[in-house]
Amino acid sequence: MKDSEQPQFDSSSPDLVKSIETMATRLRRHSLTSTTAAGSGHPSSCFSCAELISALFFNFLRFDVAQPDNPYNDRFVLSKGHAAPILWAAWAEGGAFPAERLQTLRNIDSDLEGHPTPRNPLVDVATGSLGQGLSVGVGMALSARMDATGSRIFVLLGDGEAAEGSVWEAVALAAHCKLDNLITIVDANRLGQSQATMFEHDVQGHQARFASYGWHTEVIDGHDVQQVLASFQTALDVKGQPAAIIARTLKGKGLSFMENKDGWHGKPVARGEELDKALEELGSDLELEQELHIATPGNGAGASSGASTQTAIESPKYPADAQVATRQAYGAALQKLGKINPDVVVLDGDTKNSTFSQEFLKEFPDRFVECYIAEQNMVGAAVGLGAMGKIPFASTFACFLTRAYDQIRMAAISQSSINLCGSHAGVSIGQDGPSQMGLEDLAMMRAIFGSTVLYPSDGVSTERLIALAAETPGIVYIRTSRPKTPILYSAEEDFTIGGSKVLKSSSQDRATLVAAGVTLHEALKAYQELQNDGISVRVIDLYSIKPLDLETLRQAAGETQLLVTVEDHYPEGGLGDAVRSALANESCRFHQLAVTGLPRSGPGSELMDVFGINARSIVETVKKLTG
Amino acid sequence: MKDSEQPQFDSSSPDLVKSIETMATRLRRHSLTSTTAAGSGHPSSCFSCAELISALFFNFLRFDVAQPDNPYNDRFVLSKGHAAPILWAAWAEGGAFPAERLQTLRNIDSDLEGHPTPRNPLVDVATGSLGQGLSVGVGMALSARMDATGSRIFVLLGDGEAAEGSVWEAVALAAHCKLDNLITIVDANRLGQSQATMFEHDVQGHQARFASYGWHTEVIDGHDVQQVLASFQTALDVKGQPAAIIARTLKGKGLSFMENKDGWHGKPVARGEELDKALEELGSDLELEQELHIATPGNGAGASSGASTQTAIESPKYPADAQVATRQAYGAALQKLGKINPDVVVLDGDTKNSTFSQEFLKEFPDRFVECYIAEQNMVGAAVGLGAMGKIPFASTFACFLTRAYDQIRMAAISQSSINLCGSHAGVSIGQDGPSQMGLEDLAMMRAIFGSTVLYPSDGVSTERLIALAAETPGIVYIRTSRPKTPILYSAEEDFTIGGSKVLKSSSQDRATLVAAGVTLHEALKAYQELQNDGISVRVIDLYSIKPLDLETLRQAAGETQLLVTVEDHYPEGGLGDAVRSALANESCRFHQLAVTGLPRSGPGSELMDVFGINARSIVETVKKLTG
Repeated sequence: MKDSEQPQFDSSSPDLVKSIETMATRLRRHSLTSTTAAGSGHPSSCFSCAELISALFFNFLRFDVAQPDNPYNDRFVLSKGHAAPILWAAWAEGGAFPAERLQTLRNIDSDLEGHPTPRNPLVDVATGSLGQGLSVGVGMALSARMDATGSRIFVLLGDGEAAEGSVWEAVALAAHCKLDNLITIVDANRLGQSQATMFEHDVQGHQARFASYGWHTEVIDGHDVQQVLASFQTALDVKGQPAAIIARTLKGKGLSFMENKDGWHGKPVARGEELDKALEELGSDLELEQELHIATPGNGAGASSGASTQTAIESPKYPADAQVATRQAYGAALQKLGKINPDVVVLDGDTKNSTFSQEFLKEFPDRFVECYIAEQNMVGAAVGLGAMGKIPFASTFACFLTRAYDQIRMAAISQSSINLCGSHAGVSIGQDGPSQMGLEDLAMMRAIFGSTVLYPSDGVSTERLIALAAETPGIVYIRTSRPKTPILYSAEEDFTIGGSKVLKSSSQDRATLVAAGVTLHEALKAYQELQNDGISVRVIDLYSIKPLDLETLRQAAGETQLLVTVEDHYPEGGLGDAVRSALANESCRFHQLAVTGLPRSGPGSELMDVFGINARSIVETVKKLTG
Repeated sequence: MKDSEQPQFDSSSPDLVKSIETMATRLRRHSLTSTTAAGSGHPSSCFSCAELISALFFNFLRFDVAQPDNPYNDRFVLSKGHAAPILWAAWAEGGAFPAERLQTLRNIDSDLEGHPTPRNPLVDVATGSLGQGLSVGVGMALSARMDATGSRIFVLLGDGEAAEGSVWEAVALAAHCKLDNLITIVDANRLGQSQATMFEHDVQGHQARFASYGWHTEVIDGHDVQQVLASFQTALDVKGQPAAIIARTLKGKGLSFMENKDGWHGKPVARGEELDKALEELGSDLELEQELHIATPGNGAGASSGASTQTAIESPKYPADAQVATRQAYGAALQKLGKINPDVVVLDGDTKNSTFSQEFLKEFPDRFVECYIAEQNMVGAAVGLGAMGKIPFASTFACFLTRAYDQIRMAAISQSSINLCGSHAGVSIGQDGPSQMGLEDLAMMRAIFGSTVLYPSDGVSTERLIALAAETPGIVYIRTSRPKTPILYSAEEDFTIGGSKVLKSSSQDRATLVAAGVTLHEALKAYQELQNDGISVRVIDLYSIKPLDLETLRQAAGETQLLVTVEDHYPEGGLGDAVRSALANESCRFHQLAVTGLPRSGPGSELMDVFGINARSIVETVKKLTG
């Protein structure tokens, strides 16, 4: 790990200790006045971590506030996002912006939001849904190690949020990966939102839990600056393990009427007399014995990320008569992408032999992260990798991405660019039964802000869409299927985000079949059967579910006057809902075929028949509606 | 805890040990032949727990196989659901059904599915999405304690699934609640799906983690029947703590070509020679030295659950000019429901002072479960409580229910009846910012199989809908709002699942405003403004988003020819999508007002203006579309 060019201060200096203490008072005063000005916010949650933040920012953090995207910067993730006011205060005191701006906290035109978001350039990822910051930190630490930038990652957790299981998923992976560039501070202030936390001030319990996973641990009084300084120094010196500093603190520390008292969560001090009294109690001697600033990082020796935009992968090469599962093509595409783009990283949750992400692992083990069966942390780590300039692809069964829906939602608020692949879509997976079937994933992913939802039907389009995903900002979801299906396209075929393909079309079409994935192949079979019976239908491959190719769909609606959507998904929020809702103003009839019952174990083809999403059902439906 | 009327066997008896071993062989043979017959399944994962299952079922479990719903039965949750074949085998050997039926495993007409589901009456909850069983067990153990039935709850976990954070949420709460009627067995067989688990055979690590939360722990060789028997006995004798048995096992134990070998996850043995060889190796001496059966429970002294269907709560009593947040009315309704129905239980995730579930806690502390900030476990525990006959209501911010989407999805497959309340819907919450805003919840909950989605707009309808929720089977979601809003209904007003209310209507209506929650009040303001400008519009309170009141909506579409939906939700999958999709075949124009941008901190009313979902936007939209 590369040392900063700016020497760290001597932790034993009395002037330093006094100055860090004084800075903590400044941070408390800012947190107090800004939340009172906003009329809402969490001052008590800021007060417990004032010494921790003060010491970290002004004696250890290496961060160029003028260049927040400097790859050699350390990173700080405020996992307890409701303490945002003290984060803003620390950046202001560190010279990032004038302290006056702190008074705009929570205003609609301010980037100093109630919980941190990347609207403020000093913030990498949004926090505020608790228990997610450490996963992001794991991703950042992995990225910093891959690039040998020397960046250290600091994550401040609350004790309340340590109840979230996702924290322990991250704790486990961090230790397993020996991330000694990752330091976690637990602000154990004893009080949650509505009552005391489960473990209150049992800091030894917290310590035992971190230690049980193999972390280095320090237990300190989080208001004793000498202890705080010493613990950071020790944590930074630890090799081969991540380090956790468990800090016993008091919520509301410094204000007699608030300190360690229930009922002060998310509650600002009232303007006027109460505020005056509070400011007086905090003290107004704010002169620093020793100058404090945030150190800047040196020019690191490692490679920086985020440079490569290369996505022009080698052409797909499938024989025209090949049978290829789109999940297999996902693996093939990742491997090709890995060859031309060093920023592509792949994560999986112990399903790599099912999602086929193992194809990437075979070639690029150093850029593959096995996250084990812990999907929340996998997505959080992907967000962390993305924040450092990587292009992450994370995969598991489509149904298990539901496990990480909160992380995906927060990734969108983080303006993160990550790619998620959900395999084993729908009842077509067969005998493993409903617990393994992705049937809500399209609904879930469509509702994510700014998301792109792709659903390829053959090997060629899968490979092309994976390459497009790599260059598409925001959350990109790719739905793949378990069964092998025929190749539909030649290697030269072009695909676009928001596009579709009209596979069958004539001026005689009396209906349009709109489908993707396994049901597209059923639509093509139905086309042939209907053709044999003298009924002409159009067939559209709707490989981009969001955004939709409205022009092609509208034209089909106008020309054929009947759209039949067919999907291996529940009726709500999927392909059919998307199409019907978008085209509701068209004077066209709509009919939806989707999985309307609770699935069960059985052969995939039989289930598709039972739930009425196969060629037989399509033929019957078209005949009924056009008869 | 009440003792079984049937004495347990003497664990030290050599005949017992030999018989349990022989039974384990029988279970292995069934698991082997049934998966080979099915052509898929997970025999190796069954083999590692054969002695554990054999000892538990045939020496400790008290379960009347002829009466699976006997409230005094112990419960067994196979959290590692892919080991279903050995579960079915154990029930067959226990006399629940003929062993021949095991050969129907995974057939489309069999209730012996690939992963356990309650299609089989011996199964309480579906498993197969890993890491969820222990949360269910926590709920069951809480229920058994509330009712003093003496039931003991056994949960079998895999070591791979222990990577899921939800497991540790459950571990924490079980210890906090001192659930000494809960016993967890970790089948630490070292191998996951695609490679070794993170901790492989470090059973001491597993032990340290359970112990760090305050569990009693035992580490054993899971194939040594004497150790297995002794550990269960000790675990059952522990008081004041839950107990974990960490069993070191071998995946595929008993078959030389499979035992402790990678590459055998989810893979049956081939028919013919391979199967013959495997059966030979397992051995065919299946005579029991001592008769084994599953003991039946005695008639417990405790009260049984599930009897009360009482939901006729006291009438809402709000002055006509009151301003009441629907979240407040949620709390009031729960309190009333608690008074008349002893089976109602309430769970919250440290947000009870925001969701107002604290109103229930005040009156019924023994039926309130504080789950801390761990939403996955909260929903899992609710499912466990529901499986024991309770009527659970679990609440947190709407956005944080995304954390538990996988648990909610699995609850539907479990045919569970639970009620979930998400408060703080949409941008109207204001300054806390996007991380705290529920904007995907309607999409997420609509896509759940068989779900009911309710979105009340005032105090009266909230109370009535909560009472209806309590008697509605399946997953019921209630969306509540943060701001105070006017009372719309008299205390006598009737509401129904699938209903709606036409609040404004005339023969001159040129548009229909369809809204719920805060936007309904905006629609009413817009109605007045438009009325002042001579434009008559209909206003519908769409309090039931799923199912929809299609008749009323179709009539409005036909009569007014323009439906404007207004919602504090992202555009995809919410109220607008639901209405447009359902009415796509109507010859009516549709327009959707929804949150189309990425929200930020700011006053709720300003945000509703910025995102175009307030009265001003509605008025502008109607004027533009009818002008």
